[in-house]
Amino acid sequence: MTTRMPFLSDNAAPVHPKVWEAMRAADSADNPYDGDALSAELDARFADLFGRECAGLWIATGTAANCLALATMCQPHGGVVCHREAHIEVDEGGAGGFFLHGAKLMLCGDDHGGEGAKLTPDGIAALIDPIRDDVHQVQAHAIAITQASEYGMTYSADELAALANFARSRGLGLHMDGARFANAAAFAGGNAQGAAPKAAGPVDSLAFGFIKNGGMGAEAVVLFDPEQADLVKYRRKRAGHLQCKGRYLAAQILAMLDGDLWLVNASHANAAAGEIATACGDRLMYPVEANELFVQLSEAERETLRAQNFDFYDWGADAARFVTAWNTRDEDTSALAKAIASL
Amino acid sequence: MTTRMPFLSDNAAPVHPKVWEAMRAADSADNPYDGDALSAELDARFADLFGRECAGLWIATGTAANCLALATMCQPHGGVVCHREAHIEVDEGGAGGFFLHGAKLMLCGDDHGGEGAKLTPDGIAALIDPIRDDVHQVQAHAIAITQASEYGMTYSADELAALANFARSRGLGLHMDGARFANAAAFAGGNAQGAAPKAAGPVDSLAFGFIKNGGMGAEAVVLFDPEQADLVKYRRKRAGHLQCKGRYLAAQILAMLDGDLWLVNASHANAAAGEIATACGDRLMYPVEANELFVQLSEAERETLRAQNFDFYDWGADAARFVTAWNTRDEDTSALAKAIASL
Amino acid sequence: MTTRMPFLSDNAAPVHPKVWEAMRAADSADNPYDGDALSAELDARFADLFGRECAGLWIATGTAANCLALATMCQPHGGVVCHREAHIEVDEGGAGGFFLHGAKLMLCGDDHGGEGAKLTPDGIAALIDPIRDDVHQVQAHAIAITQASEYGMTYSADELAALANFARSRGLGLHMDGARFANAAAFAGGNAQGAAPKAAGPVDSLAFGFIKNGGMGAEAVVLFDPEQADLVKYRRKRAGHLQCKGRYLAAQILAMLDGDLWLVNASHANAAAGEIATACGDRLMYPVEANELFVQLSEAERETLRAQNFDFYDWGADAARFVTAWNTRDEDTSALAKAIASL
Amino acid sequence: MTTRMPFLSDNAAPVHPKVWEAMRAADSADNPYDGDALSAELDARFADLFGRECAGLWIATGTAANCLALATMCQPHGGVVCHREAHIEVDEGGAGGFFLHGAKLMLCGDDHGGEGAKLTPDGIAALIDPIRDDVHQVQAHAIAITQASEYGMTYSADELAALANFARSRGLGLHMDGARFANAAAFAGGNAQGAAPKAAGPVDSLAFGFIKNGGMGAEAVVLFDPEQADLVKYRRKRAGHLQCKGRYLAAQILAMLDGDLWLVNASHANAAAGEIATACGDRLMYPVEANELFVQLSEAERETLRAQNFDFYDWGADAARFVTAWNTRDEDTSALAKAIASL
Repeated sequence: MTTRMPFLSDNAAPVHPKVWEAMRAADSADNPYDGDALSAELDARFADLFGRECAGLWIATGTAANCLALATMCQPHGGVVCHREAHIEVDEGGAGGFFLHGAKLMLCGDDHGGEGAKLTPDGIAALIDPIRDDVHQVQAHAIAITQASEYGMTYSADELAALANFARSRGLGLHMDGARFANAAAFAGGNAQGAAPKAAGPVDSLAFGFIKNGGMGAEAVVLFDPEQADLVKYRRKRAGHLQCKGRYLAAQILAMLDGDLWLVNASHANAAAGEIATACGDRLMYPVEANELFVQLSEAERETLRAQNFDFYDWGADAARFVTAWNTRDEDTSALAKAIASL
Repeated sequence: MTTRMPFLSDNAAPVHPKVWEAMRAADSADNPYDGDALSAELDARFADLFGRECAGLWIATGTAANCLALATMCQPHGGVVCHREAHIEVDEGGAGGFFLHGAKLMLCGDDHGGEGAKLTPDGIAALIDPIRDDVHQVQAHAIAITQASEYGMTYSADELAALANFARSRGLGLHMDGARFANAAAFAGGNAQGAAPKAAGPVDSLAFGFIKNGGMGAEAVVLFDPEQADLVKYRRKRAGHLQCKGRYLAAQILAMLDGDLWLVNASHANAAAGEIATACGDRLMYPVEANELFVQLSEAERETLRAQNFDFYDWGADAARFVTAWNTRDEDTSALAKAIASL
Repeated sequence: MTTRMPFLSDNAAPVHPKVWEAMRAADSADNPYDGDALSAELDARFADLFGRECAGLWIATGTAANCLALATMCQPHGGVVCHREAHIEVDEGGAGGFFLHGAKLMLCGDDHGGEGAKLTPDGIAALIDPIRDDVHQVQAHAIAITQASEYGMTYSADELAALANFARSRGLGLHMDGARFANAAAFAGGNAQGAAPKAAGPVDSLAFGFIKNGGMGAEAVVLFDPEQADLVKYRRKRAGHLQCKGRYLAAQILAMLDGDLWLVNASHANAAAGEIATACGDRLMYPVEANELFVQLSEAERETLRAQNFDFYDWGADAARFVTAWNTRDEDTSALAKAIASL
Repeated sequence: MTTRMPFLSDNAAPVHPKVWEAMRAADSADNPYDGDALSAELDARFADLFGRECAGLWIATGTAANCLALATMCQPHGGVVCHREAHIEVDEGGAGGFFLHGAKLMLCGDDHGGEGAKLTPDGIAALIDPIRDDVHQVQAHAIAITQASEYGMTYSADELAALANFARSRGLGLHMDGARFANAAAFAGGNAQGAAPKAAGPVDSLAFGFIKNGGMGAEAVVLFDPEQADLVKYRRKRAGHLQCKGRYLAAQILAMLDGDLWLVNASHANAAAGEIATACGDRLMYPVEANELFVQLSEAERETLRAQNFDFYDWGADAARFVTAWNTRDEDTSALAKAIASL
């Protein structure tokens, strides 16, 4: 039997052995919900990582992580500015409408956004300023950005600071969807200490993804405002996301933080993406700054690659998306790079 | 160091070794969300168990399981009849209001309910019939019962049939909160084949609990109406409960179903509860039909027990609640029985 | 043809001639929504009346008035404390669940409330303090009281001050449902200047009813916090309650305020209720402090009254409710008083 | 003082004298809510008009009328297809999100729509078919069209039939926002009997606007499916839109239906728009099929017109919108036509 070489999605990767180990060890803890010692440790661990006070709450999915944070920033009659191709708009089955009670996603498109589904202060201003204080139109309450973006690009520390300043100037909350935050952090600063703060900037909240990067079913909502954190706790319960055996989720996150496993894993995936990127040359649709590649490939070329046992998604009619992961095998990476170069 | 003897809650029990094994084995599966072979197996497995067609969906918590099922039975402007002490009313942080978009929980109290927080057709009729078709008052759309009930009592097959007939006569859906369904089934029929159908009766949907009984983070919503199942799939996604590594949840449930582990575990817990019940005699507030005991004990008596290393919750001023679990040690059970008998 | 004597509900009364006049005059205004001069006048008029800054917004129903104000005080995951028999709980078709996005109505019953469906600080404390800071249970965010109460009783200025102090001590908002606020004010201070502030006390918001008292389709939400007022404006629009010809609603309210017509009308209704009350003697279930009477009457006695052309509602098996209005004819009042005295 | 000539909005027009008359006459009715004889008459009157069974419910605003109908066609997890410039998307302050509990407005833009903000089956298919049955993406449950459209264009009977066929083929509800339905009907068939059915086609529900056309505060939701009508009744109450003095709303609608006043008024407005359209020639951005004109005019030209006492809205940088109404004076119409022709 031939082994396929998987570049479909980091969602499908297995659980990292150290995460398994930590989960098994949590059997001996015995307080339900978030009353256990492992869950209690999270706040301090994230505060260490980001260099400022915060609360860290486990949650089973990124969808819920994003929506819970946003729901505490945006009242039901308000709106959340995001990119037209943001995950919360196109891929979460209406979760925003559910958690935010019908608040509106206010979409920045090509004329209002930056490159690779990134937002810019000017683009947002063009969207929200003309309708300001018009009671007939939904007013923005918050901004949601994605780090790394839907096209695998990252916000620099300067870009984040500019967005945060803009958000403050308009009285808006600023949330970061960090499903691939680890990859963005790895890009921002290698394994160095400041990677996390550099990649988060002064956002108000962050959905810190671990699942694509070696975890099983635990993301973290990191909240830098203690009042917001209190609200999220009640809303997590209300959304059926306060698991009674939450210690197993805490254990996953702690294992990922220990020895910077989250950065180690992401760096591996980024390096693999980088190797493939080099082979893609002009075919690349966006700079590769994380672990996703969007590559112009004709249907015939995609067929050729699939015949060589590579799995990946089509991206429209003339392109493909490749995603690397913490467990991508070096030989698969090299094989793919070589195969693309040979097209 | 003294070991405490835990009778606080089955929520706190560890994960069963066979469940761990099955989860590890799921590493090799690799389709995300519910596209994997393990998730796909669930429908047929539950259909076998209940002897009728159904869909079985994994979900991380009982709160979400109950609310997702109810949300497809009750429109936002309708109501769900439940007992005044039902878990969805008193302990789920307003989850019903969230998932059902403000639908009303219509409460049967002592004058409308049966023993031990169980509902009866007559009690429900007394609540809903007088306001029928009054546009100023919320109309019932569904009924939610708990099996085993909040006081550890069970509905018999006949009682379930009567409730289902009543529900049909009023055009209402009938949902069962089965956080401790396994214990009810064990009480209903030992390890025999018909235990599950006997304990579920002809309900429309069931939140089948595995977490208190040896699982880690996977309950099942079992839906006997295929249209409802389709709705629940969309709503599960929308609620941030469609986990991308869902195969690890499916694996837990399959492990619990294999060799009737769910019944084996529940029978163990029930037996332990039974042994303690015998020692309690007239102190029992309700018949013990599952794994919970509500026992009249003065403050001094509770102090005495705690001094002997037993952990449990107070239940008001003059009673205590004891819960046994799949992992309750026989020696702890005997010790507790003896200690109560000696008070 | 015999003329019936109507004591069913003040809801059914016609529109006062002065209100008609003011509405017709509004034809000449021509700005849509709330941009007209009449709507703009409301803030100042209510500020005069209550002796403190406030915003006054027209709205077509008391249900919407109450719910819009409460929605800005209570987040979707919170709760509103009210009496078990409060109108928002029993008679508004689930409007609270809708406008508050599933927030919970937390009910004070006989053991937690005062006389005649009134709330007390002690009763509320007994309900909310034991569950405070328990993430599994909905936390109170606001209190809703009814002035006059569902049984026609009124809160004194002292009682209101005590409730407001309590609300502040727990961080809760305090809203007053004033569907019959005019009647309560008339009871509190006759036609004197201080009637409104006395009857409102230091509440945060008030749904000031005009419709039962001579208006057609305009109540006022009076908001003493300017930030809350801003939120209500957006939510009024979002709820489809920002009428494009709002000037006709403003005109109704202004006509009711001119020359204290609201107090004149309410005083008339109260006086009628008082005359009937005197005739009822020991039959009265509650003191008559507004325009509603709850009177113990056997089925036979009610039959006798109906045979004499009086219309009213049964109140359970052994009582009746009589409501007077701004247009209740003196001869009908006297006739009813006499008829009851003669039973 | 100079009199302005108002072409800003039909929203600002006064109430028609016959409507005033009918409202005054309703004083003598005395049943609250919708229990009066006038409200009861509506179903039959609309059935006569449309030539098929239906229910007709009064409601204070078009926003609420549209949203209540749509809420019964689209579950909270579904979506409503509408044009990117539809009123429910851009001008109703998020009402759709509120009434539909976070359901998604799925927007047809220039690449998916027809001329003048009209929808076409092909455009809708291109939007919804590619994501069909993908649980990660919101599925369409209903379609909302506007008659006359946001740019004053109308759907022909054939176009409506095609949309209804398409909706049926996809299992979708079809709702018509008829804020200016009268104008579309007048365009479709003059004063002839078949105008209403021709302009409504086989839609499932219609928000039939009367307020812009001579009413004060009463639109009608017309529902051709009796089950849907029942749901709307409960939801109207729940939304605080069941007015206790509803007879005054019913009276307005009946007055508008009597002697086809609705068509007479709309025909007057359409004729005025037609006269101005002729003068506009190539400046027209869209064919004038109702009572709105979108006219290319430079800033200087708009200044010239305003200096001649014409009031109207700018439409972007290079155009203006003019709206005629039931009360537009013939001399103002002629004056505007002449003024534009002279530019």
